[in-house]
Parts: sequence; C-alpha cells; structure tokens
Amino acid sequence: MDNPRHNTRDIFPATGTEITAKSWLTEAPMRMLMNNLHPDVAENPHELVVYGGIGRAARTWQDFDLIVDSLKSLEDDQTLLVQSGKPVGVFRTHKDAPRVLIANSNLVPHWANWDHFNELDKKGLAMYGQMTAGSWIYIGTQGIVQGTYETFVEAGRQHYGGNLSGKWVLTGGLGGMGGAQPLAAVMAGACCLAVECDETRADFRLRTRYVDEKTHSLDEALAMIDRWTKAGEAKSVALIGNAAEVFPELVRRAQAGGIRPDIVTDQTSAHDPVHGYLPEGWSVAEWRARQETDPKAVEAAARKSMRKQVEAMVAFADMGIPTVDYGNNIRQMALEEGFERAFAFPGFVPAYIRPLFCRGVGPFRWAALSGDPEDIYKTDQKVKELIDDPHLHNWLDMARERISFQGLPARICWVGLGLRDKLGLAFNEMVRNGELKAPIVIGRDHLDSGSVASPNRETEAMRDGSDAVSDWPLLNALLNTASGATWVSLHHGGGVGMGFSQHSGMVICCDGSEDADRRIARVLWNDPATGVMRHADAGYQIALDCAREHGLNLPGIL
Amino acid sequence: MDNPRHNTRDIFPATGTEITAKSWLTEAPMRMLMNNLHPDVAENPHELVVYGGIGRAARTWQDFDLIVDSLKSLEDDQTLLVQSGKPVGVFRTHKDAPRVLIANSNLVPHWANWDHFNELDKKGLAMYGQMTAGSWIYIGTQGIVQGTYETFVEAGRQHYGGNLSGKWVLTGGLGGMGGAQPLAAVMAGACCLAVECDETRADFRLRTRYVDEKTHSLDEALAMIDRWTKAGEAKSVALIGNAAEVFPELVRRAQAGGIRPDIVTDQTSAHDPVHGYLPEGWSVAEWRARQETDPKAVEAAARKSMRKQVEAMVAFADMGIPTVDYGNNIRQMALEEGFERAFAFPGFVPAYIRPLFCRGVGPFRWAALSGDPEDIYKTDQKVKELIDDPHLHNWLDMARERISFQGLPARICWVGLGLRDKLGLAFNEMVRNGELKAPIVIGRDHLDSGSVASPNRETEAMRDGSDAVSDWPLLNALLNTASGATWVSLHHGGGVGMGFSQHSGMVICCDGSEDADRRIARVLWNDPATGVMRHADAGYQIALDCAREHGLNLPGIL
Ligand SMILES: NC(=O)c1ccc[n+]([C@@H]2O[C@H](COP(=O)([O-])OP(=O)(O)OC[C@H]3O[C@@H](n4cnc5c(N)ncnc54)[C@H](O)[C@@H]3O)[C@@H](O)[C@H]2O)c1
Ligand SMILES: NC(=O)c1ccc[n+]([C@@H]2O[C@H](COP(=O)([O-])OP(=O)(O)OC[C@H]3O[C@@H](n4cnc5c(N)ncnc54)[C@H](O)[C@@H]3O)[C@@H](O)[C@H]2O)c1
Repeated sequence: MDNPRHNTRDIFPATGTEITAKSWLTEAPMRMLMNNLHPDVAENPHELVVYGGIGRAARTWQDFDLIVDSLKSLEDDQTLLVQSGKPVGVFRTHKDAPRVLIANSNLVPHWANWDHFNELDKKGLAMYGQMTAGSWIYIGTQGIVQGTYETFVEAGRQHYGGNLSGKWVLTGGLGGMGGAQPLAAVMAGACCLAVECDETRADFRLRTRYVDEKTHSLDEALAMIDRWTKAGEAKSVALIGNAAEVFPELVRRAQAGGIRPDIVTDQTSAHDPVHGYLPEGWSVAEWRARQETDPKAVEAAARKSMRKQVEAMVAFADMGIPTVDYGNNIRQMALEEGFERAFAFPGFVPAYIRPLFCRGVGPFRWAALSGDPEDIYKTDQKVKELIDDPHLHNWLDMARERISFQGLPARICWVGLGLRDKLGLAFNEMVRNGELKAPIVIGRDHLDSGSVASPNRETEAMRDGSDAVSDWPLLNALLNTASGATWVSLHHGGGVGMGFSQHSGMVICCDGSEDADRRIARVLWNDPATGVMRHADAGYQIALDCAREHGLNLPGIL
Repeated sequence: MDNPRHNTRDIFPATGTEITAKSWLTEAPMRMLMNNLHPDVAENPHELVVYGGIGRAARTWQDFDLIVDSLKSLEDDQTLLVQSGKPVGVFRTHKDAPRVLIANSNLVPHWANWDHFNELDKKGLAMYGQMTAGSWIYIGTQGIVQGTYETFVEAGRQHYGGNLSGKWVLTGGLGGMGGAQPLAAVMAGACCLAVECDETRADFRLRTRYVDEKTHSLDEALAMIDRWTKAGEAKSVALIGNAAEVFPELVRRAQAGGIRPDIVTDQTSAHDPVHGYLPEGWSVAEWRARQETDPKAVEAAARKSMRKQVEAMVAFADMGIPTVDYGNNIRQMALEEGFERAFAFPGFVPAYIRPLFCRGVGPFRWAALSGDPEDIYKTDQKVKELIDDPHLHNWLDMARERISFQGLPARICWVGLGLRDKLGLAFNEMVRNGELKAPIVIGRDHLDSGSVASPNRETEAMRDGSDAVSDWPLLNALLNTASGATWVSLHHGGGVGMGFSQHSGMVICCDGSEDADRRIARVLWNDPATGVMRHADAGYQIALDCAREHGLNLPGIL
C-alpha cells in the first residue's frame, strides 16, 4: 500500500446485538469509529476523511486497523490513548474511567499554524481531527441540521417576526456540514440558494433529499427562487458555481434593483485555505491536483477569492440584509488578506446561539448501536414524553419525516442542563428493560456550551472579553474524564482552522447497567453545567439565573 | 482591600495530624497550596507570586480564600475546578477521580502571546501559573537543585571526563529556580559565579546557604573564582550586577587572554520580557516602577539587553566553551530581536536531559504533610533501601547535608518508570503502618518526560521533528485524571513564556489507604510511562528499549 491514507475498503459498523469487543463500552467506540467512515456518512471515506475539509477519523488505514484491534482486546479497566489518529498506548485505569482518551491536532501555540501542521502532516506526524471526525461522534449531515435550523428560526424571529415564508437564504458550500443548509432553511420555512462548486457534492445532497433542485445557471436558480418565494413554497436549489463569483454578481444585481436575499451566510471550508476553498476561475480538478503539487499557490489564490466573497457579504450587510459568518472563519481570512471591514457582520454564535449556550443548550445527540431505526423512533417518543416543548416536538416530527438516517440511526436534539441527564437515564433504562434492541451512545458536537474556546466563533465577543481563554474546554475534558464518560477528546483547530480554537468532546455509552446510570447522571449533568459555569463567569444573566435555578456550586462566581 | 493581589498576611500550611478538611485527599491540596505561599518558599508571597516571574498560586487573595473554603467542605466524591487560579465549580464525581482539576493560563493559540495575556490579566481574567506555582507542588529551590545538579554532572561527564574540580560555571539569575545553580554547581564539584541584579535575591540565597559569597565587584568575584579553582575548592559567589553587562565584559576579558568560564548558562526570567529581565543601565527600582507605568518600554529595553547577553553566550560557545540555554527562552527573545545566531548553542534538554526522559526519569518529588523533617529522612532511608544506585545515594546524602528545607519538608529525586510506583507504594505503606507521622504527597515538575511540549526546551530538536505536537501533555493530563491522581493541572506558558509551551502536572496523596495503593500503582506507573511512550514514538532507541523491557502496550509504536 503506497499511500497509507488511501484504501478502497468500505467500512460498515457492525449492527445488532452480537459484539466482537469484550464489552459494549469498547464495542461502542469501535462501531462509532466505523460509523464515521460509513460510505453514507463520510465525505471521502477511502481517504479516511469524515467532513470539514480534511477532518479524519484515524491517521492512516494501518492506524485504523490498530485502533480496532486495540478496542477489541481492551479490558474494562484499561484505557486506550489515541494521539492525532494513532493508537499510542493502552494503560491500566479502572471501570469508571473512560475507555478511550483522544488528543488530535494540538500544537504549541507559537507553532499552531497551517504551515507547521502541513509539514508535520506530510511527515506522517499529524492528523486533522476537526470536531467530531477524530472523536468518533459525527452522525452525518443531520448533526448540523438542527443547529442550522435553530439558527435560521432564531434569525427569522429576530428579523422577520418569526415568519420566513417567502424569504430566501443565500449561502455557499454543500459539504458535510454545509449540506444541511438547504434542508434546514426549508424546515424553517424559507427558500435557499446554495452555491457549490463541486457537482458531486450537490448530487449527494439531492440523493439524500437535503436539496430539492440543481442547476448550472444563476438565472435559472433565481427564477426558481422567485417562483417559490412568490408562491410561499419552501424549496431549495443547488447552483453549481463558485461563491467568489456568484456572491459579487448577486450584489451587483441587488444594487441594480434586482432580487435580493433575505439572509446571507456561507459554509465553504474557508478555515482551510489549501483544501477548503476553490479559487475563482479554477476548475475543481486543477484545484485538487495543485493542492498536492503547489499548495502555496492554491492558498494565495483561495485567500484572494475569499476576500471577494466577504466583500460581497459585507455589501449585503450594508444593504441591511442579515448576514452571518457560519463558523468557517472566512472573515479572518479576508482580514488577513487586507480587507479591514471583514468583521463588519457578526458570527452566528453571538448573533443567535449564545442565549442557548447560557443554559447549557447545544447539539446533544445519540445513536442506536443496534442499527435499527426503530430504536431511534422509540427514543424520539421518549423525548416527547419527557419534555413538553412544542418546538422540540415539531423538530422531532420534521426530522423523522425529512431526514434520512446515514449510517447508524441517530438523532440530534438541542437540549440543556437538567434535560440531558434525564434523557440519558431514560434511554439507559430502555436499554436495561429491553425496549431498545441494543445500547445507545450519547454525545455532542465540540461546538457546545462549555466545550470550546474559539474567538471567531463560539466565544466571539464574550461579555467580559474572555474569548480566547481556553482553560474552559480543558477543564471540561478533565471533568468529563473524571466523571466517567466512555470516551473524551481534546482537539485544536476544528471548524475555524489551525490556531483559532481548542475544544473537547465526550461520548457516553448507555449499556443498560447500573454503573452506567451513575456515570450518565454525573457526565450528562456536569458536561452542560460547565457551559453554564463558563457563561456565568463571563457575566451573562441567563447563565447566572440558570446556575442558581439548578443549584450549581460555583464558588468564585455565584 | 484595593489591590486584590496584595495582602500582608503570612500563610503557613497546617502541620501535624489534625485535619480541618474532610479527608487527607482534600487536606493535602490545601496544605500544598498554602505551602506554595509559605514565606520561606515563595519569592513574593504577599503578591501570591511563588516563582518564575509572576507564577502565582491563586488569582487573587479572595480566590485563595475561596479555594481553601471549597477544599475544606469538599466531599470525597466531589471535584473542585480551578480556572487560572480562581475556583469556579464543584461537581459530583467519584472517589477514584481527582479532587481538584486545574487549568491555568491557557489561551487559544492565535491569541497566545504576552500582549493578550497581559490585557486579560489587567482585567482580572487571567493568572500566570508557571509550572508548579499554580499547580501547588513547588517545594522551594530544592525542586530545581537536583535537576541542575544532574545537568552539571552530565556536562562534566561529556566535556571534562567526569571531573569538574577546578572548573567554574558562569550564570545569571538567583531567583526561585536560578538560586539553585551555585549550590548545584558546588555539589557537582565546580565553582560558580552567578550574576544577580537584585541584591535581596542574593541575600536570600546566602541565608539559605545556596551561595557562599556575595560581592558588588567583578574583579573581586573573579579573584575568588581564581583562588578557589586553583585550590580545587568548590565554592560559589553572587555578583550583584546586570548579566547583560557582565557577560559581554567577561567575553572581552576572555578574548584578551583573561580567565574564562568552563560552562556558561543563564536563569534570569527571560521568558517574561516585561517582568523578568532587568534592562542594562536601569536600576531595579526604576524597572519595577515602569513595569506598571510603561510596560512596552520595559519590554523593548529588556529585549535589547537580552540580545546582548545571548551574543556574549554565543561568543563563549564560539570559544569552545560548553554553553546551554537553561530553559528560560532567552535564545528566542534574542532571535526575535534580530540576532540570527541566537540558537547557535543548544538547550539543556537535548544536550543533557533527553536520555533520562527516554526512561521516564525526571523531577519526581514528595513532601511530608506532617511538617516533620524526620518523615522525609525516613523516606530517604527507604529510597536507599529500595534503589541500589550509588549516584542516587550520594545525592540523598548531599541533599540532607546541604539543603535546608523550605516550608513543608520535601525531597526530590530523579527516578523513572518502574521506580516511581515502587517508591509511592512503599511510602503509602509507611503511612499505613505508622512509620510516618502523616500522609505524604508525591508529584513532579511539569518539566518531565511525558508531560510537556516545549519546542525551545523540553522538546527541542526531537528526533522526528515532533517538537511542537502538544497532544502528548494533554493525553498525560487526561490519563492521570483517569488513573486517579489527587490533583491534575494543565498549563500554558510556564518557564518559556506565553505561546511557547503546554504542560501538565499531577500530585497524588499517599494517605495510607488501600484505595491509595491502587491509585498510586496506576498513576505512578502510567505517568512516567507516557513519557517513555512519547519518546518511543519519536524513535529514541533508549525509549523503545525501556518500553519493551517494561512490557508497555504501545499499539502504533512497538
Ligand atoms: N457552523 C458550524 O456549526 C460548523 C460546524 C463545523 C464546521 N463548520 C465549518 O463550516 C465549513 C464547512 O464544513 P463542511 O463540513 O461542510 O466542509 P466540506 O469541506 O465538507 O464542504 C465545503 C464545501 O464547500 C465547497 N466549496 C469550496 N470552495 C467553494 C467555492 N469557492 N464556491 C462554492 N463552493 C465551494 C466544497 O466543494 C465543499 O463541498 C468548514 O469551514 C467547517 O469548519 C461549521
Ligand atoms: N531549567 C528549568 O528547569 C527551569 C524550570 C522552571 C523555570 N525556568 C526558567 O528559568 C528562569 C528563572 O526562573 P526563576 O524561578 O529563578 O525566576 P525568578 O523570576 O524568580 O528569578 C529571576 C532572577 O533573575 C534576576 N534578573 C533579572 N534580570 C537580570 C539581569 N539582567 N541580570 C541579572 N539578574 C537578572 C532577577 O532579579 C531574579 O532574581 C525563568 O525564565 C524560568 O521560566 C527554568
């Protein structure tokens, strides 16, 4: 095998109740690692790429095999250490300790840039873990659908009186995360025009019903949008094109009195200027080839194009159109490219998400290790029983109707402190009493309330100016380890790229045991509580109230 | 109280067997926090400064009090979170989890510089944790004596046939760490001339017998050195002066055929250009005052002076005199000041320490919570019984003879994988059977085999180029948490300053229980084992051999 990162194997996680590891606590990470590479889940599984540019599940195929072997033989008082996608050690711990501890892509700050990372990567010493790629809790595009949906709904509330009917969203990128945008917009009641340069990506979204139509013509796309918005129909179209060209063209047309979007955003992989953003005027094939042969030239051209797109976004914002950075760090790139007004529009977190984070609400999710969709439908039902919230019920109904499962059936549901542990204990009980066929794993994105420091995204414009303080995600990871999560991860980079964020993840397996009850009660309480704590420390009243209401013990804060 | 960081209280840890916390596992961090601020231990306890420039034990005095209160009421299934010296939360965990989890001074890499840190610090949002200051396992200057001693001995071995008699060391700085240099040199058989600008620091070292003489005159100092070296006497002198002036002057004299040092190094606090290095021509009082009023001017002047000192050090190296950076990042400062040859001499780790790190050997240490020196003498005896190594026995004898305890009696002993757990279990047994009056805590510096990523110091010039990869210290902290250390810490900055390192610490309390036996066996094995793992992964043969010999399970490595 010449390229240790390329293979033509297709990976499918085992399903059903037979396990090949020594317990469900090790079978779970094994299935979830494999699920991350499932052909329906990963963006480029043969290269081990799960999503977000080059976000991988393991460093090489050999490492993948070694991780699987290690998990199969791991005892219930042992812990496997994974260092940037490579299994490096198995150590004696105890039954309440995590079974896997993961650190991906972390670099000493002075060297924490793409150049140094790429140098290490070329030597085989690194892997980009993104957020849930290298931490084995990516669940396909659904993972982002609710977040995006919540964001669009909140934008509708703030700017359009809660009604997005007849409105349309302009965006770029239909990749692993970005592909969720047209569906989320439609669920929120809006139309969507998504510019995507790689036709295969658009086709993937068509196939999975995340986007309704596809065209190569801007005029045709705009005609559809015009027709749908007039008819009050919520539908979406993928336009094959380059956002760096289409966005400025739309600004010109809008300035000339033409049709104008109602919300503008973007989810190209701008965080990674070598692999993530097609320069204007280049073909996709040429771009891919030169990423290998001349990465510096690709980067320079991509940055120039990003600047053009951000200039267009600022122009939309100047017209009074709600415009947000959707967490790909494109403003930073444009700033570094010399565009001083790059940060003239906000990130989506301070604009729409922070009030949720203050209550520990974030992208909570779970997957059914049985592989049986019925297990998820039963948990959906349980959530409805336990949480009386029409908005949430509505989401669950739409999700069931519109979202095809990818890989192991899974559900995402933004809930916060006090509800996560409640749901976790209920699911564990359902495993114990046989209502569910097999154990459930519960995790979340690294993009969550207490688990990330990312001054251009999750912690942009914090009330007290503590945007860049990364003690918080580190404490979150240490506490989840101390509380008995099944696996815990610490990453650097993620969605905003090298140097711009540090974040942690956790997953806990509900194997139906009473030990699991105790761990779930601790982990699924403590994890969102650290988010409430972090926001309370920054002085957000919602967080302070939430902390008091839930009786948190925060010595230096309350 | 106007300045939340200033107080005139004197802090002394409780001693003896009565505890005010609910168990020894919480009494231990409380006593060690207080010990870090003991007037005989800390460099500036009224400002909460323990050592290393502005390395603090708590963010403010109010935070200190809140930490103490929290520790007093903490249950044996709770964990206290400390964020940059502020106690921010108490959470339910379990008895095998750490009682305290600490993250200090961590910043998202793009913002990880002194400017941003100082801005946060001014707002009350930060604290510099150094390595063992904010993690409560500083034991006074002794902590560094053995490391420095081992370094000088190894330098003697490599350059002078193992005999330093008649040789002399030139160095700068007699602060918390640097103060160990004259004593360590003398113990290794050499003379030492240490340039220190702050007379009170030199006086402190005289009082504690770490340095033998003091003078304001370079000629007088050189006359002493000349007399001692000729007589084969190992003695030391503190020269009150500025290293940026004295080093170049000594180069001039050496070049003119005058006396020349046999080893050159430095331990001014060069890592912190605002607070750590006196600019040439300034008085100490002026320097202190302008740190507050005009930090930018101080920094600029300090950097210029550092460049001069490093130029002198390179000139010594060019004369063939063994010259090493002693971990204060002074080469980086000179490089940034435009001196291209700044890295023409090596750091002390690749030069002398790495072979030890390959076997997990590093600054292992313990302290007697009873406060009784006899407890330490008994552990000294136990070490001799268990480890048959003349070099180690010699160290223990010299330490007992020459090193005055500061604060709680403590001992440092560089031992590695396979011995640390053995000693820990033996000490725990001695607590259990009453040989020792009270529990012992065992910890180490962050500067250790598996616990630090620091490309200008501990991980300089790694064999595979992985100097900047910081997954390793993060995994180390997660694993120590999973293994049941009593407290675990994750810091950024430390001895080389903002942006240049990430590192982790751990301390475990031997309370004599059988639970402690199990934890000690895991923690004191796993912790050095991660160091062997990290060096084996980098391809060091000594580490690979050590891993095999000890039967480590390193899937992707062995
Ligand atoms: N907001 C969030 O919650 C969140 C979470 C994770 C990641 N992200 C960030 O969002 C971005 C997208 O993530 P992803 O997983 O979808 O990445 P991806 O790499 O899978 O998809 C990016 C898509 O953009 C397309 N693209 C690139 N350049 C283009 C151009 N000039 N014009 C049009 N299309 C272009 C690519 O072909 C690709 O399909 C990343 O930067 C990621 O880090 C955001
Ligand atoms: N090698 C190691 O193992 C190790 C470990 C920890 C820290 N360090 C680093 O070593 C350095 C010293 O640490 P410390 O705890 O002794 O710090 P410190 O701040 O307590 O002492 C520094 C001393 O240098 C003196 N000084 C400053 N400028 C001077 C000048 N121009 N000329 C002469 N003296 C001057 C100061 O007065 C002070 O006494 C720091 O940079 C620290 O980070 C090294």
